[in-house]
Formats: sequence, structure tokens, C-alpha cells
Amino acid sequence: VKAAVLRAGELVVDTLPDPQPGPLQTLVRTLACGICGSDLHFVHHGRRLTELSAEGGGRGGLDHEQDIVMGHEFVAEVLEHGPGSAASAPAVGSVVVSMPIMFTALPPGPENVTAVGYSNEFNGGYAEMMRLFTPMLLTVPNGLPVDHAALTEPMAVGLHAVNRANLAPGESVIVHGCGPVGLAVIAALQLLGERTIVAADFSPARRALAARLGATVVVDPAVDDVWDVWQREAGSSSAGSSTVVQFEAIGVQGMLNRLMQRAPRHSRIVVVGVCMELDTITPIWGINKELNLQFVLGYTAEEFSATLGHLAEGRIDGSPLITGRVGLDQVSSSFASLANPEQHVKILVHPNQ
Amino acid sequence: VKAAVLRAGELVVDTLPDPQPGPLQTLVRTLACGICGSDLHFVHHGRRLTELSAEGGGRGGLDHEQDIVMGHEFVAEVLEHGPGSAASAPAVGSVVVSMPIMFTALPPGPENVTAVGYSNEFNGGYAEMMRLFTPMLLTVPNGLPVDHAALTEPMAVGLHAVNRANLAPGESVIVHGCGPVGLAVIAALQLLGERTIVAADFSPARRALAARLGATVVVDPAVDDVWDVWQREAGSSSAGSSTVVQFEAIGVQGMLNRLMQRAPRHSRIVVVGVCMELDTITPIWGINKELNLQFVLGYTAEEFSATLGHLAEGRIDGSPLITGRVGLDQVSSSFASLANPEQHVKILVHPNQ
Repeated sequence: VKAAVLRAGELVVDTLPDPQPGPLQTLVRTLACGICGSDLHFVHHGRRLTELSAEGGGRGGLDHEQDIVMGHEFVAEVLEHGPGSAASAPAVGSVVVSMPIMFTALPPGPENVTAVGYSNEFNGGYAEMMRLFTPMLLTVPNGLPVDHAALTEPMAVGLHAVNRANLAPGESVIVHGCGPVGLAVIAALQLLGERTIVAADFSPARRALAARLGATVVVDPAVDDVWDVWQREAGSSSAGSSTVVQFEAIGVQGMLNRLMQRAPRHSRIVVVGVCMELDTITPIWGINKELNLQFVLGYTAEEFSATLGHLAEGRIDGSPLITGRVGLDQVSSSFASLANPEQHVKILVHPNQ
Repeated sequence: VKAAVLRAGELVVDTLPDPQPGPLQTLVRTLACGICGSDLHFVHHGRRLTELSAEGGGRGGLDHEQDIVMGHEFVAEVLEHGPGSAASAPAVGSVVVSMPIMFTALPPGPENVTAVGYSNEFNGGYAEMMRLFTPMLLTVPNGLPVDHAALTEPMAVGLHAVNRANLAPGESVIVHGCGPVGLAVIAALQLLGERTIVAADFSPARRALAARLGATVVVDPAVDDVWDVWQREAGSSSAGSSTVVQFEAIGVQGMLNRLMQRAPRHSRIVVVGVCMELDTITPIWGINKELNLQFVLGYTAEEFSATLGHLAEGRIDGSPLITGRVGLDQVSSSFASLANPEQHVKILVHPNQ
């Protein structure tokens, strides 16, 4: 199987042994797989990230000396079920998505779980074929284009973050950062009904996408103070809107502290941007204003499935996010071009084209 | 009026002009006033704290070049009401407590509020007399010793932190640090009914107090791993107890990150210890485990009043915390001796003795 392999810190295209589906595993042909910002970071800082995660009680165990095939935002076609699959499993030829989770042993359980795309054992979607966990396959509804179905995973991240925020009706929101994560948050916010959604990003292209997906006000932080804009729009208006939930969807050092500094009293910050370094905060700001910080990650199985439904029914239109389609040979160069926010938001890899 | 004055970074005893009660103000004779850990820190780092608070949207405005009379855990006797006090105000001679809040102008409002004990305009309880806001006075119920009533303020801090934690029935708890704040948290926890309360402190004296106030297990972190003890006691037992709420009641750099590192998935951390410096955290630990950090400060008026009731009815017995009684001349030396956790927990200043 041809794949874009992370090997010794470089993305190289190589042919690996064809994966064989084991019990409760399904062999699939990868149709499309989005490139995630986490993958970009992982190329350069994956080793450090694995160490840090392990220090915080995470699994660890990822061997950076061995090949890793990334890609966890995939849509695929069923080729063959391994032993033990139920008759109700999606038929051969079905188009499916799945949470990027596999199990290194059966029965499946928290001690056996591993992340597709960040594993030495299971390759991710930057490969022509993959193995998936059969009971987790979701059939893509008829009529949803393959490329749109590939957005299920990143859009589910936004839905989960918004669910965790426990927004009150009409409670206003600031979304800091309109990359794929921030845009997914905005798309999920507009499902909940009318409210002030202030979205901030330095990139005009990304601000335009934010407005298209549901932001009610967009701000260029180089020109306007985000919190002043929020105050003007929502801070002193109707009941419930004097508090705000801020979504941190940038994930760079210093941002969380900046949000804490400007946060109104008793407000909440949802940390969905993944800052992979140590970070400095000013606890006294948290204390003086009794702030609440909710860190979030991933999604539940229900949220993943609901997101697929939202995409299929057009309640979330993620298609404007798709800015490029490439083959395996261009994965490496795509990682480089994603550094420019004006050019790209979401590039899909089509490993079989 | 004789007072222990913070002047140019030193605590000196001096005589200041007698305070005159203005409209809605009551002149009181200070009967007792506890020394708070925040006061200790304030002597050395008050200026920096004022700056940091102002940068986070706090009031600022405190002039460290001018005298400050600290002391915000007071009980006092009513001497004289200023103009405009209601007939229902506590009679002259009544023993009262109050939240340590004054207003620099009328009508009282958030823009006029100032903190008694951290003000250039209103002296705190390290003085023979003070002015208090008449509508906020609470009469100490008959039979509650004056010294115990002085614990209303610090014990209210614990009640508030516990209320903010929104504990589920039986949900287990770790209290890190058994100084006055940690002990107040423990005292408030035992009001809520049976649960595993693991309390950790390096000091044997403070661990003994923690056990007396309601901790079910006490841990010396120099000998045992607090989280291992918690895991053994509660981590794998009945439903609901596999999560934990950790109270950070130490307030030194690095503690919050350590709690994040060892926190179980989806658990909550209540930050009640006031770390007045910048602090470093590892966001990826928060994200990987979807942690929630709730910073807390102070108490509501209801919580303050409820705490007085708990003390009066014996539901909270704070008396073991009182380890010393001193006059104004010994305030400065008491600040020094409070550095030794074996010797002291709460020293009460009796300014008129």
C-alpha cells in the first residue's frame, strides 16, 4: 500500500505491506483524508508531545523511531471485513467514516485503545488502504459528497467544544482564531440559534469564512480590540449577554493568559486550541474574576454521528473550508503551504488518485 | 486611634486620626481580627499584586506610598451610627461582623466598592476602631464567643469554594494544603455529608487539624503520594467516586500544574489558594483529560451570613484553628511566627487589649 510516511521527522512516500483485517476489523480504501493542524505540529514536535502526554498520565508508547502514517479525518470505501463482523456491518462498497480509534487487543476497552493516525500499528488516512474497527463504521448517507464527509471529524471537534460550553440561550461568544477548529466551533454555534458570535482572526480569508459559517461580527485583531467590539455588540445589551464564553482556538503560547486578562468577571473560557508547549498564566486574574477554564478534546461517539447527520442534512455546510485536493505525492508540500492562512484552510488528500 | 500600619513596606504601630462615621457608616470598636495569609504576602508583594490585578481589569488605585491598615477578618462592637442609618441597624453595644467591603461614594455600587483592609481610605481591623457599612452589619448571635465570630470571614471562603465545586453526592475530594483556607474547605465539606476527603499537608499539626475538622484521610506528601492514597481510598470504589474534585489551597507556583498532571480524566480543580505570581501550566494535560479549572474568590453575602450561622450553631467548629491572641504591638512579630506551620494557624489580633 502506498502511503505518505512520517519517518525520522520527514514525510516520505513509500510502499508499505498491505494491511490485513483482523477480528472486528474492516479493510477500507481511503477516498479522502483531511490534513489537520495537529499533524503539522506533530511532524516537528511529535516526540516532545508524546513525552509531555505521558507525563500527564497519557498512554505514551508511540515509537518515533518507527514509521507513523498520519491522517485521522478520513472517508473510505469498505473492501473487506475481517473475521467476526456482524451481518449488520456496512456492505462491501459502502462509503463510511469512523472515529479514528482502533484497539490493539480484544475485547475493546480503555486499556487497548489507540489513535488511528498517531500509531505505529495502524496506519492513518495518508495511505491507499487502512484498517478500521468494524463496529464503529458509520455509513455516509446517500448524496453527501465524499469530500464533505471527510469533514465529519474536524466539525465534530467544534460540536463537542460547544456542547461542553453549556451555553445559556442568547449568551454571547467570542471565537479566537478562525482556522479549521475555530470555524468548526462557529458552525456548531449557529446550530444553537441566535446569539452574538464575535470571531477574530488576522486573515481576511478566514474572517470571510467565519462570517459565512455564522459569525455575527468578525474582527481583525490588528485593527480592532476584540473585547471592545464584543462589549459594544453584546456586553451591555439584553439579559444574559453580559457574560461571555470565549473559545480559544489558536493554541499558541500566551493566548490563554491574554484571554484571562481580558475576560469579564465570572466568565468562561473553553480551551479547544491545542497549545503543545508549556504556557504561562496569571492565576490572580483567574481568582479575582472567578474564571472557569474548560479544556476540551475530541468528541463523543454521539457527537461524531450527529455531525455526520448535520453535514448530510445541510445544517452544517463545511464545503467552503475545502481549499485544496492533493495526491499522496503532494502531502509533504501541502504541509508547507498550510502555513499560509490566506491560501488554505483544509486540504484533502486523495490517496488513490 | 492606635493601629498597626503598613508603611513603606514595614508594619509599624502608630496613632492615626480617629475615623468619623459618614452616611450609612457605623463606627465600631474592633474586638478581634484574624491575620490572613494574604496579609503576609501583601506586606512583601502588595505593590506587584496591585499592578497585576489592575492589568487583569481589577480596580487598582491602591497607593502603596500611603498608609494601609490591613485586617479583614474582624468582629467588632457598635459604637455609633453615622447619618441616615435605619432604625433596624444593630444597637450600640451590639457585637457584629461584616463582609470587609466599603463604598467610597453613595449610592453603593460596583464602581464605588473598596476592600476593607486593602484600602487607603478605610482602615482594617488592625486598629482600635473602624468604619463599616451599616446595611452590611450582621449581629453575632448570643453565645458565640467573639474569637469564634472572627472566623466568619475565613470560614466563608471555604464554604464558597465548596459551593462553587458543585459536588455530586459522595463525589470524593482531595484538599491540597491544610492552612486556614484548606481547613475552611474541609469544614465546609463535612457539612455536605459523607464522602472521602483526602487532605494533604507537610505539617503534622495541620494534618491533625484537618482530621479533626472532617478529613477522612490525611496524607504527608513527603511520605505518601496523595493521588495514590486517593486512588486506594476512593478511586475504584462506588459509583461517582471515580472522579475527584481537587482543591488547590496552597497557592504556590507549580502546584496547579502538578494537580493537572495527576488529575484523572474529566476531573475538576478548584483553585482557592491565591498564587500571586505568574505560573506555568501544561495545557496539553488539561486538553488530553478535558480538565475543568474553577478559580474562586471570596463569598456571597448569603454565604457569609450562613457561615456565621454555622459557627453559632456549632455545625462548624473553627476554634481549633485559633492558635494565638496578640495585641497591636505584636502584629509584626506575629506575621513572622505565622511562617512556622507547626506553631500557628490563625492568630487573632485584639487591638483594644
